[in-house]
Amino acid sequence: MARPLTDIDAVREQLLEIVEDLVRQRGSADFSMAELANAAGMSPSNIYRFFESKEALYEAAAERWFAAKIAIMEEVVASDLPIREKLLAFFARRFAVMVAQYQAEPDLFKSYLEIGQQHFELVRGHVDLGDHFLSVIVAEAMQAGYFRGLSIDETVSLINQMVQPYCNPDAIIYIGLVKLTEAKLAKIVDAILIGLGDSNHLSADTQGSQIRVVQ
Amino acid sequence: MARPLTDIDAVREQLLEIVEDLVRQRGSADFSMAELANAAGMSPSNIYRFFESKEALYEAAAERWFAAKIAIMEEVVASDLPIREKLLAFFARRFAVMVAQYQAEPDLFKSYLEIGQQHFELVRGHVDLGDHFLSVIVAEAMQAGYFRGLSIDETVSLINQMVQPYCNPDAIIYIGLVKLTEAKLAKIVDAILIGLGDSNHLSADTQGSQIRVVQ
Repeated sequence: MARPLTDIDAVREQLLEIVEDLVRQRGSADFSMAELANAAGMSPSNIYRFFESKEALYEAAAERWFAAKIAIMEEVVASDLPIREKLLAFFARRFAVMVAQYQAEPDLFKSYLEIGQQHFELVRGHVDLGDHFLSVIVAEAMQAGYFRGLSIDETVSLINQMVQPYCNPDAIIYIGLVKLTEAKLAKIVDAILIGLGDSNHLSADTQGSQIRVVQ
Repeated sequence: MARPLTDIDAVREQLLEIVEDLVRQRGSADFSMAELANAAGMSPSNIYRFFESKEALYEAAAERWFAAKIAIMEEVVASDLPIREKLLAFFARRFAVMVAQYQAEPDLFKSYLEIGQQHFELVRGHVDLGDHFLSVIVAEAMQAGYFRGLSIDETVSLINQMVQPYCNPDAIIYIGLVKLTEAKLAKIVDAILIGLGDSNHLSADTQGSQIRVVQ
Protein backbone atom coordinates (compact mmCIF):
# COMPACT_ATOMS: atom_id res chain seq x y z
CA MET A 1 0.00 0.00 0.00
CA ALA A 2 1.26 3.49 -0.84
CA ARG A 3 2.54 5.62 2.04
CA PRO A 4 -0.01 8.28 3.05
CA LEU A 5 0.90 11.64 1.56
CA THR A 6 -0.28 13.96 4.32
CA ASP A 7 -1.10 13.86 8.00
CA ILE A 8 -4.79 13.98 7.11
CA ASP A 9 -4.35 10.93 4.88
CA ALA A 10 -2.36 9.16 7.61
CA VAL A 11 -5.10 9.74 10.20
CA ARG A 12 -7.81 8.71 7.73
CA GLU A 13 -5.94 5.46 7.12
CA GLN A 14 -5.61 4.87 10.87
CA LEU A 15 -9.32 5.57 11.34
CA LEU A 16 -10.18 3.09 8.57
CA GLU A 17 -8.12 0.46 10.37
CA ILE A 18 -10.11 1.19 13.54
CA VAL A 19 -13.32 0.91 11.49
CA GLU A 20 -12.19 -2.55 10.38
CA ASP A 21 -11.54 -3.49 14.02
CA LEU A 22 -15.03 -2.32 14.97
CA VAL A 23 -16.56 -4.38 12.14
CA ARG A 24 -14.43 -7.33 13.29
CA GLN A 25 -15.65 -6.98 16.90
CA ARG A 26 -19.32 -6.29 16.18
CA GLY A 27 -19.91 -8.20 12.94
CA SER A 28 -21.58 -5.11 11.48
CA ALA A 29 -21.03 -1.44 10.63
CA ASP A 30 -23.53 -0.57 13.35
CA PHE A 31 -21.56 2.08 15.24
CA SER A 32 -21.84 5.87 15.47
CA MET A 33 -19.23 8.47 14.53
CA ALA A 34 -18.99 9.23 18.28
CA GLU A 35 -18.17 5.59 19.01
CA LEU A 36 -15.52 5.61 16.29
CA ALA A 37 -14.05 8.82 17.76
CA ASN A 38 -14.00 7.20 21.19
CA ALA A 39 -12.25 4.08 19.84
CA ALA A 40 -9.67 6.38 18.22
CA GLY A 41 -9.15 8.48 21.38
CA MET A 42 -10.43 11.53 19.53
CA SER A 43 -13.13 14.07 20.35
CA PRO A 44 -16.45 13.47 18.54
CA SER A 45 -16.20 16.83 16.74
CA ASN A 46 -12.59 16.27 15.69
CA ILE A 47 -13.48 13.16 13.70
CA TYR A 48 -15.48 15.22 11.19
CA ARG A 49 -12.20 16.85 10.10
CA PHE A 50 -11.32 13.48 8.57
CA PHE A 51 -14.71 12.18 7.41
CA GLU A 52 -17.45 14.72 6.95
CA SER A 53 -20.23 12.16 7.41
CA LYS A 54 -20.93 8.51 8.08
CA GLU A 55 -21.58 8.13 4.34
CA ALA A 56 -18.12 9.52 3.51
CA LEU A 57 -16.63 7.08 6.01
CA TYR A 58 -18.51 4.15 4.44
CA GLU A 59 -17.36 5.20 0.98
CA ALA A 60 -13.74 5.38 2.08
CA ALA A 61 -14.01 1.95 3.75
CA ALA A 62 -15.54 0.45 0.60
CA GLU A 63 -12.81 2.04 -1.54
CA ARG A 64 -10.18 0.50 0.74
CA TRP A 65 -11.90 -2.91 0.51
CA PHE A 66 -12.04 -2.79 -3.32
CA ALA A 67 -8.61 -1.18 -3.88
CA ALA A 68 -6.71 -4.42 -4.57
CA LYS A 69 -9.33 -5.58 -7.08
CA ILE A 70 -9.39 -2.28 -8.94
CA ALA A 71 -5.58 -2.34 -9.19
CA ILE A 72 -5.79 -5.85 -10.67
CA MET A 73 -8.40 -4.82 -13.25
CA GLU A 74 -6.36 -1.79 -14.33
CA GLU A 75 -3.19 -3.86 -14.60
CA VAL A 76 -4.80 -6.73 -16.54
CA VAL A 77 -6.62 -4.45 -18.99
CA ALA A 78 -3.40 -2.48 -19.68
CA SER A 79 -1.31 -5.65 -20.10
CA ASP A 80 -0.38 -7.14 -23.45
CA LEU A 81 -1.47 -10.65 -22.47
CA PRO A 82 -3.13 -12.70 -25.24
CA ILE A 83 -6.93 -12.39 -25.06
CA ARG A 84 -7.57 -15.78 -23.45
CA GLU A 85 -4.98 -15.18 -20.70
CA LYS A 86 -6.24 -11.63 -20.25
CA LEU A 87 -9.87 -12.67 -19.76
CA LEU A 88 -8.84 -15.46 -17.39
CA ALA A 89 -6.54 -13.19 -15.35
CA PHE A 90 -9.28 -10.54 -15.15
CA PHE A 91 -11.45 -12.99 -13.18
CA ALA A 92 -8.92 -15.43 -11.67
CA ARG A 93 -6.71 -12.83 -9.98
CA ARG A 94 -9.65 -11.11 -8.29
CA PHE A 95 -11.13 -14.47 -7.31
CA ALA A 96 -7.78 -15.35 -5.69
CA VAL A 97 -7.91 -12.09 -3.69
CA MET A 98 -11.45 -12.88 -2.50
CA VAL A 99 -10.43 -16.40 -1.49
CA ALA A 100 -7.41 -15.04 0.43
CA GLN A 101 -9.61 -12.45 2.19
CA TYR A 102 -12.14 -15.14 3.07
CA GLN A 103 -9.56 -17.62 4.31
CA ALA A 104 -7.69 -15.03 6.38
CA GLU A 105 -10.80 -13.93 8.31
CA PRO A 106 -14.03 -15.72 7.33
CA ASP A 107 -16.16 -13.84 9.88
CA LEU A 108 -14.87 -10.43 8.81
CA PHE A 109 -15.48 -11.43 5.17
CA LYS A 110 -19.10 -12.35 5.98
CA SER A 111 -19.58 -9.10 7.88
CA TYR A 112 -18.38 -7.11 4.87
CA LEU A 113 -20.77 -9.06 2.64
CA GLU A 114 -23.69 -8.19 4.93
CA ILE A 115 -22.65 -4.55 5.00
CA GLY A 116 -22.46 -4.60 1.20
CA GLN A 117 -25.99 -6.05 1.00
CA GLN A 118 -27.34 -3.39 3.36
CA HIS A 119 -25.51 -0.55 1.58
CA PHE A 120 -25.58 -1.68 -2.03
CA GLU A 121 -24.89 1.88 -3.25
CA LEU A 122 -21.30 1.32 -2.02
CA VAL A 123 -20.94 -1.80 -4.18
CA ARG A 124 -22.75 -0.41 -7.24
CA GLY A 125 -19.87 1.80 -8.41
CA HIS A 126 -17.44 -1.08 -8.17
CA VAL A 127 -19.72 -3.35 -10.21
CA ASP A 128 -20.07 -0.64 -12.88
CA LEU A 129 -16.30 -0.16 -12.98
CA GLY A 130 -15.85 -3.91 -13.48
CA ASP A 131 -18.33 -3.79 -16.40
CA HIS A 132 -16.39 -0.91 -17.94
CA PHE A 133 -13.05 -2.76 -17.78
CA LEU A 134 -14.65 -5.96 -19.06
CA SER A 135 -16.13 -4.07 -22.02
CA VAL A 136 -12.61 -2.95 -22.98
CA ILE A 137 -11.43 -6.58 -23.00
CA VAL A 138 -14.54 -7.67 -24.93
CA ALA A 139 -13.91 -4.97 -27.57
CA GLU A 140 -10.34 -6.22 -27.92
CA ALA A 141 -11.59 -9.80 -28.27
CA MET A 142 -14.09 -8.70 -30.91
CA GLN A 143 -11.25 -7.18 -32.91
CA ALA A 144 -9.62 -10.61 -32.78
CA GLY A 145 -12.82 -12.15 -34.15
CA TYR A 146 -14.57 -13.36 -31.01
CA PHE A 147 -18.23 -12.85 -30.03
CA ARG A 148 -19.47 -12.37 -33.61
CA GLY A 149 -23.04 -11.18 -33.86
CA LEU A 150 -23.21 -9.99 -30.26
CA SER A 151 -23.05 -6.40 -28.97
CA ILE A 152 -20.47 -5.41 -26.37
CA ASP A 153 -23.14 -4.84 -23.70
CA GLU A 154 -24.76 -8.20 -24.42
CA THR A 155 -21.40 -9.98 -24.29
CA VAL A 156 -20.42 -8.29 -21.02
CA SER A 157 -23.73 -9.34 -19.49
CA LEU A 158 -23.43 -12.95 -20.73
CA ILE A 159 -19.85 -13.26 -19.46
CA ASN A 160 -20.80 -11.81 -16.07
CA GLN A 161 -23.59 -14.37 -15.79
CA MET A 162 -21.37 -17.31 -16.83
CA VAL A 163 -18.60 -16.48 -14.32
CA GLN A 164 -21.01 -15.28 -11.61
CA PRO A 165 -19.82 -17.79 -8.96
CA TYR A 166 -16.25 -16.45 -9.32
CA CYS A 167 -17.29 -12.77 -8.99
CA ASN A 168 -19.99 -12.92 -6.35
CA PRO A 169 -18.28 -13.29 -2.95
CA ASP A 170 -21.43 -14.92 -1.56
CA ALA A 171 -20.72 -17.91 -3.81
CA ILE A 172 -17.57 -18.72 -1.84
CA ILE A 173 -19.90 -19.44 1.06
CA TYR A 174 -22.95 -21.01 -0.62
CA ILE A 175 -21.14 -23.02 -3.33
CA GLY A 176 -17.85 -23.47 -1.48
CA LEU A 177 -14.18 -23.61 -2.34
CA VAL A 178 -14.18 -27.36 -2.99
CA LYS A 179 -16.26 -26.73 -6.12
CA LEU A 180 -14.90 -23.31 -7.14
CA THR A 181 -11.41 -23.76 -8.59
CA GLU A 182 -9.22 -21.78 -10.94
CA ALA A 183 -9.00 -24.85 -13.20
CA LYS A 184 -12.78 -24.78 -13.65
CA LEU A 185 -12.78 -21.03 -14.17
CA ALA A 186 -10.23 -21.55 -16.97
CA LYS A 187 -12.54 -24.09 -18.67
CA ILE A 188 -15.45 -21.64 -18.38
CA VAL A 189 -13.35 -18.83 -19.92
CA ASP A 190 -12.44 -21.17 -22.79
CA ALA A 191 -16.11 -22.03 -23.31
CA ILE A 192 -16.95 -18.30 -23.34
CA LEU A 193 -14.36 -17.58 -26.02
CA ILE A 194 -15.07 -20.66 -28.12
CA GLY A 195 -18.81 -20.88 -27.67
CA LEU A 196 -20.33 -17.39 -27.29
CA GLY A 197 -21.70 -15.80 -30.44
CA ASP A 198 -20.67 -17.11 -33.81
CA SER A 199 -17.05 -16.97 -32.69
CA ASN A 200 -16.65 -20.72 -32.98
CA HIS A 201 -16.09 -20.04 -36.65
CA LEU A 202 -13.14 -17.70 -36.18
CA SER A 203 -11.58 -16.41 -39.34
CA ALA A 204 -9.00 -13.81 -40.27
CA ASP A 205 -11.31 -11.38 -42.06
CA THR A 206 -12.20 -9.30 -39.02
CA GLN A 207 -10.14 -6.26 -39.87
CA GLY A 208 -12.10 -3.09 -40.36
CA SER A 209 -15.01 -4.22 -38.19
CA GLN A 210 -16.55 -1.44 -36.15
CA ILE A 211 -15.61 -1.57 -32.49
CA ARG A 212 -17.49 0.62 -30.06
CA VAL A 213 -16.47 0.64 -26.38
CA VAL A 214 -19.31 1.26 -23.93
CA GLN A 215 -18.19 3.91 -21.44
CA MET B 1 -52.14 -31.03 -9.11
CA ALA B 2 -53.29 -34.62 -8.47
CA ARG B 3 -56.41 -35.13 -6.32
CA PRO B 4 -55.52 -36.26 -2.78
CA LEU B 5 -55.98 -40.00 -2.45
CA THR B 6 -57.12 -40.28 1.16
CA ASP B 7 -58.62 -38.13 3.87
CA ILE B 8 -55.21 -37.98 5.56
CA ASP B 9 -53.69 -36.69 2.34
CA ALA B 10 -56.52 -34.18 1.92
CA VAL B 11 -56.02 -32.79 5.43
CA ARG B 12 -52.24 -32.71 4.97
CA GLU B 13 -52.73 -30.68 1.79
CA GLN B 14 -55.09 -28.29 3.61
CA LEU B 15 -52.59 -27.91 6.43
CA LEU B 16 -49.81 -27.12 3.94
CA GLU B 17 -52.00 -24.41 2.46
CA ILE B 18 -52.43 -22.97 5.95
CA VAL B 19 -48.65 -23.18 6.43
CA GLU B 20 -48.25 -21.11 3.27
CA ASP B 21 -50.73 -18.56 4.63
CA LEU B 22 -48.75 -18.36 7.88
CA VAL B 23 -45.50 -17.83 5.95
CA ARG B 24 -47.31 -15.20 3.85
CA GLN B 25 -48.52 -13.38 6.99
CA ARG B 26 -45.33 -13.60 9.05
CA GLY B 27 -42.61 -13.60 6.41
CA SER B 28 -41.01 -16.60 8.12
CA ALA B 29 -41.63 -20.20 9.20
CA ASP B 30 -41.42 -19.03 12.77
CA PHE B 31 -44.58 -20.60 14.19
CA SER B 32 -45.22 -23.56 16.47
CA MET B 33 -47.21 -26.72 15.74
CA ALA B 34 -49.74 -25.43 18.31
CA GLU B 35 -50.14 -22.20 16.35
CA LEU B 36 -50.62 -24.16 13.14
CA ALA B 37 -53.24 -26.33 14.87
CA ASN B 38 -54.99 -23.20 16.11
CA ALA B 39 -54.99 -21.65 12.61
CA ALA B 40 -56.49 -24.91 11.30
CA GLY B 41 -59.15 -25.10 14.06
CA MET B 42 -57.63 -28.36 15.27
CA SER B 43 -56.46 -29.51 18.70
CA PRO B 44 -52.67 -29.32 19.19
CA SER B 45 -52.45 -33.09 19.70
CA ASN B 46 -54.56 -33.87 16.63
CA ILE B 47 -52.11 -32.16 14.29
CA TYR B 48 -49.47 -34.81 15.01
CA ARG B 49 -51.72 -37.36 13.27
CA PHE B 50 -50.84 -35.55 10.03
CA PHE B 51 -47.26 -34.40 10.63
CA GLU B 52 -45.31 -36.24 13.29
CA SER B 53 -42.91 -33.33 13.87
CA LYS B 54 -42.07 -29.80 12.79
CA GLU B 55 -39.29 -31.33 10.63
CA ALA B 56 -41.79 -33.59 8.85
CA LEU B 57 -43.97 -30.54 8.23
CA TYR B 58 -41.02 -28.58 6.82
CA GLU B 59 -40.09 -31.48 4.56
CA ALA B 60 -43.62 -31.75 3.21
CA ALA B 61 -43.75 -27.97 2.60
CA ALA B 62 -40.40 -28.09 0.75
CA GLU B 63 -41.60 -31.06 -1.33
CA ARG B 64 -44.74 -29.08 -2.26
CA TRP B 65 -42.60 -26.04 -3.19
CA PHE B 66 -40.27 -28.11 -5.40
CA ALA B 67 -42.94 -30.41 -6.93
CA ALA B 68 -43.42 -28.45 -10.17
CA LYS B 69 -39.66 -28.29 -10.79
CA ILE B 70 -39.16 -31.99 -10.16
CA ALA B 71 -41.98 -32.81 -12.59
CA ILE B 72 -40.28 -30.62 -15.22
CA MET B 73 -36.91 -32.32 -14.75
CA GLU B 74 -38.46 -35.79 -15.03
CA GLU B 75 -40.40 -34.83 -18.13
CA VAL B 76 -37.45 -33.15 -19.88
CA VAL B 77 -35.02 -35.99 -19.14
CA ALA B 78 -37.51 -38.58 -20.41
CA SER B 79 -38.29 -36.56 -23.56
CA ASP B 80 -36.77 -37.26 -26.96
CA LEU B 81 -35.81 -33.62 -27.54
CA PRO B 82 -32.50 -33.05 -29.36
CA ILE B 83 -29.69 -32.50 -26.85
CA ARG B 84 -29.49 -28.71 -27.27
CA GLU B 85 -33.24 -28.25 -26.77
CA LYS B 86 -33.19 -30.75 -23.89
CA LEU B 87 -30.44 -28.93 -22.00
CA LEU B 88 -32.11 -25.57 -22.60
CA ALA B 89 -35.56 -26.82 -21.51
CA PHE B 90 -34.02 -28.39 -18.39
CA PHE B 91 -33.02 -24.93 -17.17
CA ALA B 92 -35.42 -22.59 -18.99
CA ARG B 93 -38.64 -24.30 -17.91
CA ARG B 94 -37.65 -24.28 -14.22
CA PHE B 95 -36.43 -20.69 -14.51
CA ALA B 96 -39.86 -19.75 -15.94
CA VAL B 97 -41.55 -21.39 -12.94
CA MET B 98 -39.31 -19.44 -10.52
CA VAL B 99 -40.04 -16.19 -12.34
CA ALA B 100 -43.81 -16.88 -12.22
CA GLN B 101 -43.60 -17.69 -8.49
CA TYR B 102 -41.61 -14.53 -7.85
CA GLN B 103 -43.91 -12.30 -9.91
CA ALA B 104 -47.10 -13.73 -8.38
CA GLU B 105 -45.98 -13.05 -4.79
CA PRO B 106 -42.53 -11.43 -4.43
CA ASP B 107 -42.70 -11.26 -0.62
CA LEU B 108 -43.73 -14.90 -0.26
CA PHE B 109 -40.91 -15.86 -2.66
CA LYS B 110 -38.36 -13.98 -0.53
CA SER B 111 -39.71 -15.58 2.63
CA TYR B 112 -39.28 -19.05 1.12
CA LEU B 113 -35.71 -18.14 0.11
CA GLU B 114 -34.93 -17.10 3.68
CA ILE B 115 -36.47 -20.28 5.06
CA GLY B 116 -34.37 -22.26 2.56
CA GLN B 117 -31.21 -20.49 3.74
CA GLN B 118 -32.02 -21.19 7.37
CA HIS B 119 -32.94 -24.83 6.69
CA PHE B 120 -30.57 -25.78 3.91
CA GLU B 121 -31.06 -29.50 4.64
CA LEU B 122 -34.51 -29.09 3.00
CA VAL B 123 -32.94 -27.70 -0.20
CA ARG B 124 -29.99 -30.11 -0.31
CA GLY B 125 -31.99 -33.11 -1.54
CA HIS B 126 -33.51 -31.07 -4.34
CA VAL B 127 -30.07 -29.82 -5.45
CA ASP B 128 -28.74 -33.39 -5.46
CA LEU B 129 -31.74 -34.57 -7.49
CA GLY B 130 -31.07 -31.79 -10.02
CA ASP B 131 -27.45 -32.95 -10.31
CA HIS B 132 -28.64 -36.50 -10.89
CA PHE B 133 -30.99 -35.53 -13.72
CA LEU B 134 -28.37 -33.23 -15.25
CA SER B 135 -25.83 -36.06 -15.21
CA VAL B 136 -28.24 -38.18 -17.29
CA ILE B 137 -28.47 -35.39 -19.90
CA VAL B 138 -24.69 -34.92 -19.83
CA ALA B 139 -24.13 -38.64 -20.41
CA GLU B 140 -26.49 -38.48 -23.38
CA ALA B 141 -24.62 -35.43 -24.73
CA MET B 142 -21.30 -37.27 -24.32
CA GLN B 143 -22.65 -40.10 -26.42
CA ALA B 144 -23.36 -37.48 -29.10
CA GLY B 145 -19.73 -36.32 -28.87
CA TYR B 146 -19.99 -33.34 -26.52
CA PHE B 147 -17.78 -32.57 -23.51
CA ARG B 148 -14.80 -34.57 -24.73
CA GLY B 149 -12.06 -35.01 -22.18
CA LEU B 150 -14.29 -34.10 -19.23
CA SER B 151 -15.84 -36.45 -16.65
CA ILE B 152 -19.60 -36.41 -16.05
CA ASP B 153 -19.17 -34.98 -12.53
CA GLU B 154 -16.85 -32.24 -13.78
CA THR B 155 -19.23 -31.34 -16.61
CA VAL B 156 -22.24 -31.23 -14.28
CA SER B 157 -20.34 -28.94 -11.93
CA LEU B 158 -19.17 -26.64 -14.76
CA ILE B 159 -22.67 -26.40 -16.24
CA ASN B 160 -24.19 -25.65 -12.82
CA GLN B 161 -21.68 -22.84 -12.35
CA MET B 162 -22.25 -21.36 -15.83
CA VAL B 163 -26.05 -21.27 -15.49
CA GLN B 164 -25.99 -20.40 -11.79
CA PRO B 165 -28.01 -17.14 -12.16
CA TYR B 166 -30.86 -19.13 -13.78
CA CYS B 167 -30.93 -21.80 -11.04
CA ASN B 168 -30.33 -19.78 -7.89
CA PRO B 169 -33.60 -18.03 -6.99
CA ASP B 170 -31.63 -15.33 -5.15
CA ALA B 171 -30.29 -14.17 -8.52
CA ILE B 172 -33.79 -13.08 -9.57
CA ILE B 173 -33.52 -10.51 -6.80
CA TYR B 174 -29.83 -9.51 -6.86
CA ILE B 175 -29.28 -9.61 -10.66
CA GLY B 176 -32.88 -8.89 -11.66
CA LEU B 177 -35.24 -9.92 -14.44
CA VAL B 178 -34.13 -7.15 -16.80
CA LYS B 179 -30.77 -8.91 -17.17
CA LEU B 180 -31.89 -12.54 -16.81
CA THR B 181 -33.70 -13.59 -19.99
CA GLU B 182 -34.41 -16.88 -21.70
CA ALA B 183 -32.65 -15.54 -24.83
CA LYS B 184 -29.43 -15.13 -22.83
CA LEU B 185 -29.85 -18.52 -21.21
CA ALA B 186 -30.12 -20.02 -24.71
CA LYS B 187 -26.81 -18.36 -25.71
CA ILE B 188 -25.17 -19.70 -22.55
CA VAL B 189 -26.44 -23.22 -23.26
CA ASP B 190 -25.02 -22.96 -26.79
CA ALA B 191 -21.65 -21.83 -25.40
CA ILE B 192 -21.70 -24.77 -22.98
CA LEU B 193 -22.29 -27.27 -25.79
CA ILE B 194 -19.91 -25.65 -28.26
CA GLY B 195 -17.19 -24.54 -25.89
CA LEU B 196 -16.89 -26.94 -22.94
CA GLY B 197 -14.27 -29.65 -23.24
CA ASP B 198 -12.85 -30.51 -26.64
CA SER B 199 -16.38 -30.75 -28.01
CA ASN B 200 -15.82 -27.86 -30.39
CA HIS B 201 -14.22 -30.48 -32.60
CA LEU B 202 -17.26 -32.70 -32.83
CA SER B 203 -16.85 -35.74 -34.99
CA ALA B 204 -18.81 -38.87 -35.71
CA ASP B 205 -16.36 -41.38 -34.22
CA THR B 206 -17.81 -41.34 -30.71
CA GLN B 207 -19.48 -44.73 -30.81
CA GLY B 208 -18.22 -47.19 -28.29
CA SER B 209 -17.06 -44.52 -25.82
CA GLN B 210 -17.59 -45.47 -22.20
CA ILE B 211 -20.53 -43.67 -20.62
CA ARG B 212 -20.95 -43.89 -16.86
CA VAL B 213 -23.91 -42.20 -15.21
CA VAL B 214 -23.25 -40.89 -11.71
CA GLN B 215 -26.12 -42.04 -9.47
